[in-house]
Amino acid sequence: MKIEYKPIGIVHSPFKEAEGTPIQPTRAKRVQGTVEVYTDYEEGLADLDGFSHIILLFHFHKSKGFKLKVIPFLDTVHRGLFSTRAPKRPNSIGLSVVKLLKVEGNILTIEGVDMLDGTPILDIKPHVGEFEDNETLRIGWVESARQNRTVSDNRFEGS
Amino acid sequence: MKIEYKPIGIVHSPFKEAEGTPIQPTRAKRVQGTVEVYTDYEEGLADLDGFSHIILLFHFHKSKGFKLKVIPFLDTVHRGLFSTRAPKRPNSIGLSVVKLLKVEGNILTIEGVDMLDGTPILDIKPHVGEFEDNETLRIGWVESARQNRTVSDNRFEGS
Repeated sequence: MKIEYKPIGIVHSPFKEAEGTPIQPTRAKRVQGTVEVYTDYEEGLADLDGFSHIILLFHFHKSKGFKLKVIPFLDTVHRGLFSTRAPKRPNSIGLSVVKLLKVEGNILTIEGVDMLDGTPILDIKPHVGEFEDNETLRIGWVESARQNRTVSDNRFEGS
Repeated sequence: MKIEYKPIGIVHSPFKEAEGTPIQPTRAKRVQGTVEVYTDYEEGLADLDGFSHIILLFHFHKSKGFKLKVIPFLDTVHRGLFSTRAPKRPNSIGLSVVKLLKVEGNILTIEGVDMLDGTPILDIKPHVGEFEDNETLRIGWVESARQNRTVSDNRFEGS
Protein backbone atom coordinates (compact mmCIF):
# COMPACT_ATOMS: atom_id res chain seq x y z
CA MET A 1 0.00 0.00 0.00
CA LYS A 2 1.39 3.36 -1.05
CA ILE A 3 0.01 6.72 -0.02
CA GLU A 4 0.71 9.74 -2.16
CA TYR A 5 0.64 13.32 -0.93
CA LYS A 6 1.24 16.63 -2.62
CA PRO A 7 2.49 19.77 -0.81
CA ILE A 8 -0.16 22.43 -0.13
CA GLY A 9 2.46 25.10 0.50
CA ILE A 10 6.02 25.91 1.40
CA VAL A 11 7.87 27.35 4.41
CA HIS A 12 10.00 30.48 4.19
CA SER A 13 12.38 30.54 7.13
CA PRO A 14 15.79 31.95 8.05
CA PHE A 15 17.28 28.43 8.23
CA LYS A 16 19.00 27.43 5.02
CA GLU A 17 20.63 24.21 6.27
CA ALA A 18 19.93 21.63 8.99
CA GLU A 19 22.95 22.51 11.10
CA GLY A 20 21.96 25.23 13.54
CA THR A 21 18.23 24.90 12.96
CA PRO A 22 16.30 24.83 16.25
CA ILE A 23 15.24 21.34 17.28
CA GLN A 24 11.69 22.11 18.33
CA PRO A 25 9.47 25.19 18.20
CA THR A 26 9.83 25.83 21.94
CA ARG A 27 13.52 26.34 21.23
CA ALA A 28 12.76 28.67 18.37
CA LYS A 29 10.23 30.83 20.11
CA ARG A 30 11.13 34.17 18.70
CA VAL A 31 12.01 33.01 15.20
CA GLN A 32 9.50 34.21 12.62
CA GLY A 33 8.82 32.90 9.17
CA THR A 34 5.96 32.46 6.74
CA VAL A 35 3.97 29.65 5.23
CA GLU A 36 3.04 30.31 1.63
CA VAL A 37 -0.07 28.27 0.98
CA TYR A 38 -0.56 27.60 -2.71
CA THR A 39 -3.43 29.73 -3.99
CA ASP A 40 -5.46 26.64 -4.95
CA TYR A 41 -5.95 26.06 -1.22
CA GLU A 42 -6.29 29.66 -0.02
CA GLU A 43 -10.05 29.39 0.54
CA GLY A 44 -9.38 26.71 3.16
CA LEU A 45 -7.57 29.24 5.37
CA ALA A 46 -10.82 30.97 6.34
CA ASP A 47 -11.40 31.11 10.12
CA LEU A 48 -7.80 30.12 10.85
CA ASP A 49 -7.03 33.61 12.18
CA GLY A 50 -9.19 32.85 15.21
CA PHE A 51 -6.56 30.44 16.47
CA SER A 52 -3.47 31.57 18.35
CA HIS A 53 -1.54 28.39 17.50
CA ILE A 54 -1.62 25.98 14.60
CA ILE A 55 -0.15 22.58 13.90
CA LEU A 56 1.99 22.27 10.79
CA LEU A 57 2.61 18.86 9.27
CA PHE A 58 5.45 18.91 6.81
CA HIS A 59 7.82 16.71 4.86
CA PHE A 60 11.47 16.59 5.98
CA HIS A 61 12.60 17.12 2.40
CA LYS A 62 16.33 16.96 3.20
CA SER A 63 16.12 13.61 5.00
CA LYS A 64 16.92 10.41 3.15
CA GLY A 65 16.75 6.92 4.63
CA PHE A 66 16.37 6.06 8.31
CA LYS A 67 17.77 3.93 11.12
CA LEU A 68 15.55 2.36 13.78
CA LYS A 69 17.97 3.35 16.55
CA VAL A 70 19.33 6.88 16.67
CA ILE A 71 21.24 9.14 19.02
CA PRO A 72 18.88 12.10 19.43
CA PHE A 73 20.20 15.66 19.57
CA LEU A 74 19.17 15.79 23.22
CA ASP A 75 20.94 12.60 24.24
CA THR A 76 24.18 10.63 24.04
CA VAL A 77 22.87 7.06 23.70
CA HIS A 78 20.86 5.21 21.05
CA ARG A 79 17.08 5.39 21.37
CA GLY A 80 14.27 3.75 19.44
CA LEU A 81 13.45 6.03 16.49
CA PHE A 82 9.76 6.38 17.38
CA SER A 83 10.64 7.70 20.83
CA THR A 84 12.48 10.57 19.12
CA ARG A 85 11.66 13.42 16.76
CA ALA A 86 14.59 12.64 14.45
CA PRO A 87 13.78 13.70 10.87
CA LYS A 88 15.00 10.51 9.18
CA ARG A 89 11.95 8.29 9.58
CA PRO A 90 10.23 5.60 7.50
CA ASN A 91 7.73 8.35 6.62
CA SER A 92 9.54 11.63 7.15
CA ILE A 93 6.65 13.69 8.43
CA GLY A 94 7.46 16.55 10.76
CA LEU A 95 5.11 18.20 13.23
CA SER A 96 5.44 21.66 14.74
CA VAL A 97 3.08 23.76 16.81
CA VAL A 98 3.66 27.39 15.92
CA LYS A 99 2.12 30.69 16.91
CA LEU A 100 -0.03 32.23 14.18
CA LEU A 101 0.69 35.96 14.03
CA LYS A 102 -1.37 36.87 10.99
CA VAL A 103 -3.10 35.60 7.88
CA GLU A 104 -2.90 37.75 4.75
CA GLY A 105 -4.35 36.11 1.68
CA ASN A 106 -2.40 32.90 1.22
CA ILE A 107 0.47 33.91 3.53
CA LEU A 108 0.60 32.87 7.19
CA THR A 109 3.11 34.71 9.36
CA ILE A 110 4.21 32.40 12.14
CA GLU A 111 6.46 32.46 15.20
CA GLY A 112 8.38 29.52 16.59
CA VAL A 113 9.80 28.37 13.28
CA ASP A 114 12.06 25.30 13.45
CA MET A 115 11.77 24.29 9.81
CA LEU A 116 14.24 24.62 7.00
CA ASP A 117 13.58 27.17 4.31
CA GLY A 118 11.76 25.46 1.45
CA THR A 119 10.10 22.78 3.60
CA PRO A 120 6.96 21.43 1.88
CA ILE A 121 3.81 21.75 3.99
CA LEU A 122 1.43 18.78 3.93
CA ASP A 123 -1.34 19.94 6.24
CA ILE A 124 -2.40 22.71 8.59
CA LYS A 125 -4.61 21.99 11.60
CA PRO A 126 -5.97 24.25 14.33
CA HIS A 127 -4.42 23.71 17.76
CA VAL A 128 -7.55 23.19 19.80
CA GLY A 129 -5.88 22.33 23.07
CA GLU A 130 -6.53 18.63 23.31
CA PHE A 131 -2.86 18.18 23.97
CA GLU A 132 -3.26 19.94 27.30
CA ASP A 133 -5.96 17.53 28.29
CA ASN A 134 -3.47 14.91 29.44
CA GLU A 135 -2.96 14.03 33.02
CA THR A 136 0.60 14.04 34.26
CA LEU A 137 2.91 13.53 31.33
CA ARG A 138 5.80 11.09 31.51
CA ILE A 139 8.39 11.93 28.89
CA GLY A 140 10.83 9.02 29.17
CA TRP A 141 14.42 9.62 28.19
CA VAL A 142 13.73 13.25 27.31
CA GLU A 143 13.23 14.13 30.98
CA SER A 144 16.87 13.66 31.94
CA ALA A 145 18.28 14.55 28.55
CA ARG A 146 16.84 18.05 28.39
CA GLN A 147 19.86 20.19 28.92
CA ASN A 148 21.01 23.22 27.09
CA ARG A 149 21.10 21.71 23.63
CA THR A 150 18.82 23.81 21.47
CA VAL A 151 20.16 23.60 17.94
CA SER A 152 20.81 20.67 15.66
CA ASP A 153 23.96 19.56 13.92
CA ASN A 154 24.22 17.75 10.59
CA ARG A 155 23.77 14.18 11.84
CA PHE A 156 20.48 13.62 10.05
CA GLU A 157 21.43 15.27 6.80
CA GLY A 158 21.56 13.50 3.44
CA SER A 159 21.39 9.74 3.10
CA MET B 1 6.18 17.25 -6.46
CA LYS B 2 4.77 14.04 -5.10
CA ILE B 3 5.59 12.51 -1.74
CA GLU B 4 5.08 8.81 -1.22
CA TYR B 5 4.58 7.17 2.15
CA LYS B 6 4.05 3.58 3.22
CA PRO B 7 2.16 2.55 6.38
CA ILE B 8 4.35 1.39 9.28
CA GLY B 9 1.43 -0.28 11.03
CA ILE B 10 -2.31 -0.55 11.44
CA VAL B 11 -4.90 0.39 14.08
CA HIS B 12 -7.20 -2.16 15.66
CA SER B 13 -10.16 -0.33 17.18
CA PRO B 14 -13.81 -1.00 18.05
CA PHE B 15 -14.96 1.47 15.37
CA LYS B 16 -15.86 -0.26 12.11
CA GLU B 17 -17.41 2.75 10.36
CA ALA B 18 -17.08 6.54 10.51
CA GLU B 19 -20.55 7.13 11.90
CA GLY B 20 -20.36 7.06 15.67
CA THR B 21 -16.57 7.21 15.87
CA PRO B 22 -15.40 9.74 18.46
CA ILE B 23 -14.30 13.04 16.94
CA GLN B 24 -11.14 13.58 18.96
CA PRO B 25 -9.21 11.52 21.52
CA THR B 26 -10.42 13.66 24.43
CA ARG B 27 -13.91 12.47 23.52
CA ALA B 28 -12.76 8.86 23.37
CA LYS B 29 -10.87 8.79 26.62
CA ARG B 30 -11.77 5.36 27.83
CA VAL B 31 -11.76 3.63 24.45
CA GLN B 32 -8.89 1.19 24.09
CA GLY B 33 -7.36 -0.27 20.99
CA THR B 34 -4.01 -1.39 19.67
CA VAL B 35 -1.50 -0.30 17.10
CA GLU B 36 0.13 -3.22 15.33
CA VAL B 37 3.48 -1.93 14.14
CA TYR B 38 4.83 -4.02 11.27
CA THR B 39 7.70 -6.17 12.53
CA ASP B 40 10.15 -4.48 10.14
CA TYR B 41 9.86 -1.41 12.36
CA GLU B 42 9.60 -3.06 15.79
CA GLU B 43 13.16 -2.13 16.79
CA GLY B 44 12.21 1.54 16.53
CA LEU B 45 9.73 1.14 19.41
CA ALA B 46 12.52 0.91 22.00
CA ASP B 47 12.26 3.52 24.78
CA LEU B 48 8.69 4.39 23.79
CA ASP B 49 7.32 2.80 26.97
CA GLY B 50 8.86 5.67 28.96
CA PHE B 51 6.25 8.02 27.54
CA SER B 52 2.72 8.27 28.92
CA HIS B 53 1.32 9.74 25.71
CA ILE B 54 2.25 9.39 22.06
CA ILE B 55 1.28 11.17 18.87
CA LEU B 56 -0.09 9.01 16.09
CA LEU B 57 -0.05 10.28 12.53
CA PHE B 58 -2.31 8.25 10.29
CA HIS B 59 -3.97 8.22 6.92
CA PHE B 60 -7.76 8.75 6.78
CA HIS B 61 -8.12 5.76 4.50
CA LYS B 62 -11.89 6.10 4.11
CA SER B 63 -11.79 9.74 3.02
CA LYS B 64 -11.87 10.61 -0.65
CA GLY B 65 -11.69 14.13 -2.06
CA PHE B 66 -12.06 17.36 -0.11
CA LYS B 67 -13.83 20.70 0.01
CA LEU B 68 -12.11 23.89 1.17
CA LYS B 69 -15.16 24.92 3.21
CA VAL B 70 -16.83 22.38 5.48
CA ILE B 71 -19.40 22.27 8.24
CA PRO B 72 -17.45 20.69 11.10
CA PHE B 73 -19.10 18.18 13.42
CA LEU B 74 -18.90 20.74 16.22
CA ASP B 75 -20.55 23.53 14.26
CA THR B 76 -23.47 24.48 12.03
CA VAL B 77 -21.81 26.88 9.58
CA HIS B 78 -19.11 26.51 6.94
CA ARG B 79 -15.52 26.96 8.10
CA GLY B 80 -12.22 26.99 6.26
CA LEU B 81 -11.00 23.39 6.04
CA PHE B 82 -7.64 24.11 7.67
CA SER B 83 -9.37 25.54 10.75
CA THR B 84 -11.04 22.14 11.22
CA ARG B 85 -10.00 18.55 11.80
CA ALA B 86 -12.28 17.20 9.05
CA PRO B 87 -10.79 14.02 7.56
CA LYS B 88 -11.33 14.98 3.90
CA ARG B 89 -8.23 17.09 3.28
CA PRO B 90 -5.88 17.66 0.35
CA ASN B 91 -3.50 15.34 2.22
CA SER B 92 -5.68 13.24 4.50
CA ILE B 93 -3.32 12.96 7.44
CA GLY B 94 -4.90 12.50 10.85
CA LEU B 95 -3.28 13.30 14.19
CA SER B 96 -4.26 11.89 17.58
CA VAL B 97 -2.60 12.10 20.96
CA VAL B 98 -3.32 8.85 22.80
CA LYS B 99 -2.31 7.37 26.12
CA LEU B 100 0.21 4.55 25.83
CA LEU B 101 -0.79 1.75 28.20
CA LYS B 102 1.79 -0.83 27.23
CA VAL B 103 4.26 -1.98 24.61
CA GLU B 104 4.55 -5.71 23.97
CA GLY B 105 6.78 -6.59 21.06
CA ASN B 106 5.28 -4.83 18.06
CA ILE B 107 1.89 -4.17 19.71
CA LEU B 108 1.04 -0.88 21.41
CA THR B 109 -2.01 -0.86 23.64
CA ILE B 110 -3.48 2.62 23.64
CA GLU B 111 -6.32 4.52 25.27
CA GLY B 112 -8.20 7.40 23.71
CA VAL B 113 -8.79 5.75 20.37
CA ASP B 114 -10.72 7.82 17.83
CA MET B 115 -9.56 6.00 14.72
CA LEU B 116 -11.39 3.57 12.51
CA ASP B 117 -10.40 -0.07 12.65
CA GLY B 118 -7.86 -0.70 9.89
CA THR B 119 -6.47 2.83 9.82
CA PRO B 120 -2.92 2.87 8.39
CA ILE B 121 -0.33 4.41 10.73
CA LEU B 122 2.25 6.68 9.12
CA ASP B 123 4.32 7.73 12.11
CA ILE B 124 4.61 7.55 15.87
CA LYS B 125 6.18 10.36 17.88
CA PRO B 126 6.70 10.82 21.61
CA HIS B 127 4.50 13.46 23.21
CA VAL B 128 7.13 15.56 24.92
CA GLY B 129 4.91 18.34 26.17
CA GLU B 130 5.85 21.17 23.88
CA PHE B 131 2.19 21.67 23.17
CA GLU B 132 1.66 22.80 26.75
CA ASP B 133 4.30 25.42 26.32
CA ASN B 134 1.89 27.82 24.71
CA GLU B 135 0.67 30.93 26.37
CA THR B 136 -3.05 31.45 26.46
CA LEU B 137 -4.63 29.53 23.64
CA ARG B 138 -7.27 31.11 21.41
CA ILE B 139 -9.30 28.43 19.67
CA GLY B 140 -11.46 30.45 17.28
CA TRP B 141 -14.80 29.02 16.26
CA VAL B 142 -14.27 25.90 18.37
CA GLU B 143 -14.65 27.94 21.57
CA SER B 144 -18.34 28.59 21.10
CA ALA B 145 -19.06 25.44 19.13
CA ARG B 146 -17.93 22.99 21.79
CA GLN B 147 -21.17 21.59 23.00
CA ASN B 148 -22.17 18.06 23.65
CA ARG B 149 -21.40 16.69 20.24
CA THR B 150 -18.90 13.90 20.73
CA VAL B 151 -19.39 11.45 17.90
CA SER B 152 -19.27 11.84 14.15
CA ASP B 153 -21.88 11.11 11.50
CA ASN B 154 -21.23 10.02 7.92
CA ARG B 155 -20.75 13.45 6.35
CA PHE B 156 -17.11 12.88 5.46
CA GLU B 157 -17.47 9.33 4.22
CA GLY B 158 -16.70 8.19 0.67
CA SER B 159 -16.17 10.64 -2.15
